[in-house]
Amino acid sequence: MMKVGILGATGAVGQKFIRLLQGHPWFEIEALGASERSAGKKYKDAANWIEDVVLPEHIKDTIVKNCEPGEFSNVDFVFSGLDSSVAGDIEKAFAEAGIPVISNAKNYRQDPTVPLLIPEINPDHTDLIKTQSFSKDGKGWIVTNPNCVAVPLSLALKPLFDSFGIEALILTTMQAVSGAGYPGVASLDILGNVVPFISGEEPKVGPETRKLLSTLNEDSLSLPDFDVQATATRVPSINGHMISATVKLENPPADLEELKKAYQNYRNPVAELGLPFSPKALYNLHDNEYYPQPRLHADWENGMQLHLGRLRKADVFDVSFVAMAHNTIRGAAGGAILNAELLTKKGYLK
Amino acid sequence: MMKVGILGATGAVGQKFIRLLQGHPWFEIEALGASERSAGKKYKDAANWIEDVVLPEHIKDTIVKNCEPGEFSNVDFVFSGLDSSVAGDIEKAFAEAGIPVISNAKNYRQDPTVPLLIPEINPDHTDLIKTQSFSKDGKGWIVTNPNCVAVPLSLALKPLFDSFGIEALILTTMQAVSGAGYPGVASLDILGNVVPFISGEEPKVGPETRKLLSTLNEDSLSLPDFDVQATATRVPSINGHMISATVKLENPPADLEELKKAYQNYRNPVAELGLPFSPKALYNLHDNEYYPQPRLHADWENGMQLHLGRLRKADVFDVSFVAMAHNTIRGAAGGAILNAELLTKKGYLK
Amino acid sequence: MMKVGILGATGAVGQKFIRLLQGHPWFEIEALGASERSAGKKYKDAANWIEDVVLPEHIKDTIVKNCEPGEFSNVDFVFSGLDSSVAGDIEKAFAEAGIPVISNAKNYRQDPTVPLLIPEINPDHTDLIKTQSFSKDGKGWIVTNPNCVAVPLSLALKPLFDSFGIEALILTTMQAVSGAGYPGVASLDILGNVVPFISGEEPKVGPETRKLLSTLNEDSLSLPDFDVQATATRVPSINGHMISATVKLENPPADLEELKKAYQNYRNPVAELGLPFSPKALYNLHDNEYYPQPRLHADWENGMQLHLGRLRKADVFDVSFVAMAHNTIRGAAGGAILNAELLTKKGYLK
Amino acid sequence: MMKVGILGATGAVGQKFIRLLQGHPWFEIEALGASERSAGKKYKDAANWIEDVVLPEHIKDTIVKNCEPGEFSNVDFVFSGLDSSVAGDIEKAFAEAGIPVISNAKNYRQDPTVPLLIPEINPDHTDLIKTQSFSKDGKGWIVTNPNCVAVPLSLALKPLFDSFGIEALILTTMQAVSGAGYPGVASLDILGNVVPFISGEEPKVGPETRKLLSTLNEDSLSLPDFDVQATATRVPSINGHMISATVKLENPPADLEELKKAYQNYRNPVAELGLPFSPKALYNLHDNEYYPQPRLHADWENGMQLHLGRLRKADVFDVSFVAMAHNTIRGAAGGAILNAELLTKKGYLK
Repeated sequence: MMKVGILGATGAVGQKFIRLLQGHPWFEIEALGASERSAGKKYKDAANWIEDVVLPEHIKDTIVKNCEPGEFSNVDFVFSGLDSSVAGDIEKAFAEAGIPVISNAKNYRQDPTVPLLIPEINPDHTDLIKTQSFSKDGKGWIVTNPNCVAVPLSLALKPLFDSFGIEALILTTMQAVSGAGYPGVASLDILGNVVPFISGEEPKVGPETRKLLSTLNEDSLSLPDFDVQATATRVPSINGHMISATVKLENPPADLEELKKAYQNYRNPVAELGLPFSPKALYNLHDNEYYPQPRLHADWENGMQLHLGRLRKADVFDVSFVAMAHNTIRGAAGGAILNAELLTKKGYLK
Repeated sequence: MMKVGILGATGAVGQKFIRLLQGHPWFEIEALGASERSAGKKYKDAANWIEDVVLPEHIKDTIVKNCEPGEFSNVDFVFSGLDSSVAGDIEKAFAEAGIPVISNAKNYRQDPTVPLLIPEINPDHTDLIKTQSFSKDGKGWIVTNPNCVAVPLSLALKPLFDSFGIEALILTTMQAVSGAGYPGVASLDILGNVVPFISGEEPKVGPETRKLLSTLNEDSLSLPDFDVQATATRVPSINGHMISATVKLENPPADLEELKKAYQNYRNPVAELGLPFSPKALYNLHDNEYYPQPRLHADWENGMQLHLGRLRKADVFDVSFVAMAHNTIRGAAGGAILNAELLTKKGYLK
Repeated sequence: MMKVGILGATGAVGQKFIRLLQGHPWFEIEALGASERSAGKKYKDAANWIEDVVLPEHIKDTIVKNCEPGEFSNVDFVFSGLDSSVAGDIEKAFAEAGIPVISNAKNYRQDPTVPLLIPEINPDHTDLIKTQSFSKDGKGWIVTNPNCVAVPLSLALKPLFDSFGIEALILTTMQAVSGAGYPGVASLDILGNVVPFISGEEPKVGPETRKLLSTLNEDSLSLPDFDVQATATRVPSINGHMISATVKLENPPADLEELKKAYQNYRNPVAELGLPFSPKALYNLHDNEYYPQPRLHADWENGMQLHLGRLRKADVFDVSFVAMAHNTIRGAAGGAILNAELLTKKGYLK
Repeated sequence: MMKVGILGATGAVGQKFIRLLQGHPWFEIEALGASERSAGKKYKDAANWIEDVVLPEHIKDTIVKNCEPGEFSNVDFVFSGLDSSVAGDIEKAFAEAGIPVISNAKNYRQDPTVPLLIPEINPDHTDLIKTQSFSKDGKGWIVTNPNCVAVPLSLALKPLFDSFGIEALILTTMQAVSGAGYPGVASLDILGNVVPFISGEEPKVGPETRKLLSTLNEDSLSLPDFDVQATATRVPSINGHMISATVKLENPPADLEELKKAYQNYRNPVAELGLPFSPKALYNLHDNEYYPQPRLHADWENGMQLHLGRLRKADVFDVSFVAMAHNTIRGAAGGAILNAELLTKKGYLK
């Protein structure tokens, strides 16, 4: 078993890491880090546990540490669920101290030496780690997972990108309140309502999607150049971001069958690796036009599946679909754990 | 005062007609029609009143009639909130009997002789009435209002269409549950959820929008030919359909200012007519990026205003915005009443 | 027209005061006060307007003042929507400076010289003002309205108290999120959920209800001694607190008819005074067992009506009912305005 | 493995039976029965699957049968999730045909020969089966589980009943929409709302609770005689009925500690039997005043745990608490499965 630390352990993403790592076959939680306000307290007193499962017994009384590398000397690596306002400095400090960081924060996602990783899409990008210079001996490095919209979008686009090429896309998201953390969205703002804007969300979508679909040549990425026009909205769902997208393709499929085949034939490059968080079926293509739905499907395959629905030829551009995935599992903590699993299998973590 | 009948008076749209016509300066309710099951009963016993205001006293004990023209001989015209499964025959029967029908049903919207009318967009289309042949003396005719998505969409597009020309558009709707009538959407389907499909909704959007923006030449319409790609979803809001749209223009504006001016300078063709249901300000351009919101804004200007937000130049196509209007007022019963007001002013109703 | 100031003008209750005072026939807003953070700013910049109507034009650019009596020298009195953490000192300062305070805060509700006032229940308690010693000349004083649960509860109990006497009662509340102000309840805490506790709420219910139903003898109140057992819960409704209560009476009615008559015969002591915020019908006794409902009925009679439903003889104790009223209108700002109206009619305000 | 049939398999309760029986160590689904409309169809075509997990593969293509005993000849017993409008006749027919019926329907709950069973409360009531005369050889019989309110209420009361005796109780429920089945509650009725009445619910609470807490003497039950006053309301939660109760006891505890001990010391009579659906900890006494919450806790211990919160001495009567359990698992299908497990262990099913 590898020993892991969790940075930002009392926040919404940190809690999800704790929940998801219970019973993990490879990783066990060794240390929890949070802000000064929490440090020194028992976890049960420092955190307002908002998960809908029991707070694990052995976590309850764990003393929360400061997020300083010196306090995490006996972990093999850390997961970071830190807020972006502090993640930049802290994650750098850990990497410089020789502790690998598997981060959910946005700070290093666009760093050209840092992999923005979804194992089913770009597992070879892990090799960027070798170009990092955080620590002299190369022991410390950073790997990130994408934003909770870029994750389902990129997963939905990957087979189209491979089979038909992408020229442009227009999307509207309908995002769940859990994406804003806790306390996050005020109930008066969202009960029976739709909010047509989420601060900072839209500018991430294009760059992260292009980086995910880029090609690693030697030690740098060559990016595709399609444009993305995104409108991000908040709706009163709890878990599961829904995306409605219409895509212009370079070589559009002749018909719906050919379109579906792009998904059915997609070869998940990590399918054979036995990664514990890898969904058995990466894509769930729903035929029922009323599906997928966040409340019904977000938890399928432990929240790691990508749900596609309403796949169809479009009157404008070429293809329309809706895509949905669990935003705090597939789109955050679960994705980071899957990244750590791939990095373990590849020997970067040990 | 003109005497009006309401067909489908016990349904959700019928109830909205009753509510909105209280205190109307020109129209008073004379007769209520519904299905056989309701006919002969007092309205208060036939209808499950779901409006959030008091059922007017004088309506409570009104005896509901069958939807037969013979029972409506003393009305000047009827509003129809009938379900489309029966509206085709009943509305035709009324028109043939010489009773004008102001309809919210979809059945005759694509009839080339029937105006699909939004007074602020295409008031001259009323002249199509002269081409109708329902009744020999021309006394009976049908005018329709558009679907509750086509209404806010067309209102949002009209200034763009006039100023810059439209080539294509892609939109996603987030529609309120009141749009499905009563009982409509099951709570288990929508609480904390998003449903990515609404049966029959998407195919109406393009044709109705094109008809609304068409030009009347002599006695026929010449339609614009832009394509529309729509995805209609249901969200847990109560009133107010939100639309997220991105539009390709023929002659895009140079900048955001020019874009805004298209709305600010739009001349509402019925602004001077003193129509009671006409909003003082047709367009509400929200600068606050988090606006408009269905719960906060749907009722402004008695539910008749078109709310625009997030107006911006787009990376793909030319312009993105969100548009929102009250779906059962502006998008249904209120729109029909405004139509009747215009038709009164023009002398078609008297 | 009397000139009024609003303390705590940028908060949820302050916003409601601004909304409700638009077009008031007796009172006009002269000054707005808020915290240091807001003082000096235009109201539209200081406040995050959350009402579902337009922010009045003339308020938008009003400069917010500090809550200091010296800045409110030209008002006739102030409404206080201050948070209880600051209301104690500020309200006292205004009263000492000779400015009457009509307060929604809890701080002085249990002061034996301060009226806890609901005009339809205890209008004579205004005479307690004469016992106050805030200002030497008696020009400054404080009158409070009760907590948003005590308001509907007391209104529902008053006819029972008068007709049958009350021995004890047990109640459970289902309270709307607007009662927690803004941002208030986190959406993750309440979407699709029930929270069985509201901090500080239950201990107010008994004492405030007893004070409201007390008798003024000379210059002190003699309190009834019935016990109250309350459980306060939060549910995902927006406006309108629902109360489910079962009451033990001293002399229970013989049957449901006699019980209903207690309400039908209740003589509203301020009915004849022409107070603008007084509902035409104080009690709305719903026969439909599924009524009242917060979403349907909270706004009836401008949010000032008390809705009763499910009135019935009980198997345990004597009587059960549900009561519902708009929590931020009848139960807060609207109640305070009605108090000011009564105090004007009685000559205390001028 | 025993072979089981499910009557009413396409309904909400039937679907829950199918979901919960996946992977059950003792029972496997052999046959599915539904109405004529569904009979002859594949299950996936007959049912609108509303569970938030995958419909099991081997169920998808199972042909639905009519609910006639002849079609269920190879099952060992049936679970009934039938609607009460048809359960009376069908369940009787199965029992008469020698097929044991484990029913969730209300029809036979008050039959003096039919056990109304919650294994943790009254496991000995199974002996009532011997007094039944549905089938001559005694092979066919009926056992029922209580209504979804009586289940958590009785579980919450049982330790109080044993330790202190119960004289009377007053309760208000806040019930989730899943309790109304599908389509059940219209979204327009419950979004942002509270409905203060649920048809047919309140009259069940007292009789079922008394029967559950009764003593079996020879072959009949002697019932306790406490009164129950219930108000049943619907709130916009999805799963988990919340109950707020205040109880008058015969010999009240001296303090809160003694009260808590009644729960801590309660000896679950089936704890040692190894029943798969039996929760490890029957009672979860939450110290956090904001707990339990339906959304957070309904699924704990596979939905079979009884959650207690806000346990306290009361100002009126003696004790107040809130109780919450999953209404369609603990309060319906899961409870029925636990009943079948107990009946298996006792040799009634084999």
